[in-house]
Amino acid sequence: MSTQQAGRQGRRKAATRAALVAAATNQLAEGRPHASIQEITEAADVGFGSFYNHFSSKEELFDAAVSETLDAHAQVLARAAQGIDDLAERLAVGVRASGRLQRQLPEMSKVILHHGTTVLTREHGLVARAREDLSAGVVTGRFVSADPGLSFMLAGGALLGLLQWLEDNPEADAGLATDQLVENLLTMLGLPPSEARALATSHLPASLGA
Amino acid sequence: MSTQQAGRQGRRKAATRAALVAAATNQLAEGRPHASIQEITEAADVGFGSFYNHFSSKEELFDAAVSETLDAHAQVLARAAQGIDDLAERLAVGVRASGRLQRQLPEMSKVILHHGTTVLTREHGLVARAREDLSAGVVTGRFVSADPGLSFMLAGGALLGLLQWLEDNPEADAGLATDQLVENLLTMLGLPPSEARALATSHLPASLGA
Repeated sequence: MSTQQAGRQGRRKAATRAALVAAATNQLAEGRPHASIQEITEAADVGFGSFYNHFSSKEELFDAAVSETLDAHAQVLARAAQGIDDLAERLAVGVRASGRLQRQLPEMSKVILHHGTTVLTREHGLVARAREDLSAGVVTGRFVSADPGLSFMLAGGALLGLLQWLEDNPEADAGLATDQLVENLLTMLGLPPSEARALATSHLPASLGA
Repeated sequence: MSTQQAGRQGRRKAATRAALVAAATNQLAEGRPHASIQEITEAADVGFGSFYNHFSSKEELFDAAVSETLDAHAQVLARAAQGIDDLAERLAVGVRASGRLQRQLPEMSKVILHHGTTVLTREHGLVARAREDLSAGVVTGRFVSADPGLSFMLAGGALLGLLQWLEDNPEADAGLATDQLVENLLTMLGLPPSEARALATSHLPASLGA
């Protein structure tokens, strides 16, 4: 096979995989985690058999769809948190941006919600970095927590509850609701109420829909 | 048909339905919401066709499985909250019992977790009553919240985060972790920290695994 042919084949293969992931993402966003492989390959407009060139099971494909959704979310958060060293401020900006993102990218939020609380147990990417930030804050004394892993799950669970509420209340002020959660979380992590409030309500870059 | 025959047929029909719900509950508890109707009827040991005498879709069956799980949970909580009039104490006892139940009935907790945050939006049964209690507490001034519906979703999301953490940490002290959440929730709802702590750590009936 020539280098050109190999390149073309590689591109085609990548396009098939991307189509499958996009179709699975749509199914998850529409609340259809029960979709069959056949329904997914039809929606992706690829042959049924080609599925197994990329994924060994439907669960593996859905997992890839959630990972790519989180990665896209992570890129927005990374831009938002750029240049912020204080761990409490990083957490505040990250959660404040996440709540507001529900309005800008509701499909992304739906995919995360349909995956449930197991999304909070991921060991790489966005979730792992957020968990590490919280633990680091406890080590440095910025946060107070008897068990950082537990605090992370309580905070993450509350964030999922917020995303569900925002989805169910499309007219509600997402910024206001999210900032209320952030204030609660920072207080839970031992910050004085006045500082928690200040960090939860300070000026946000316009790009975050403040 | 004689009355006797009708009675026998009714019992058989109820048994088939119960077998289907039990099989669906198992599938959910094992993290298999993708199970097909055929897999469920085989696990329930009933004919494929009889499925449609009871449910119009797999989603309807799974919904029934979650409802019955919540109803069973509600019975335990009702016993725990019997005779308690103070809404803050009711909330404390209810959440403290819910976290401890994860250790006693892990399958119940798994079913709830696999259903994700939508479980918090149910409009009848246990979830609706807990939501009403929180709102009533805001009306009477026992709780402080700018938006009781939002506070309920943040609290419920955090409880789901706790259940997931307990599932992932089978050796952890469920009582201690749950009481920490309860203290946070009561503080979030405006109780003075000392009262929140007292309600989160007071003596529980032995039946709740205190």
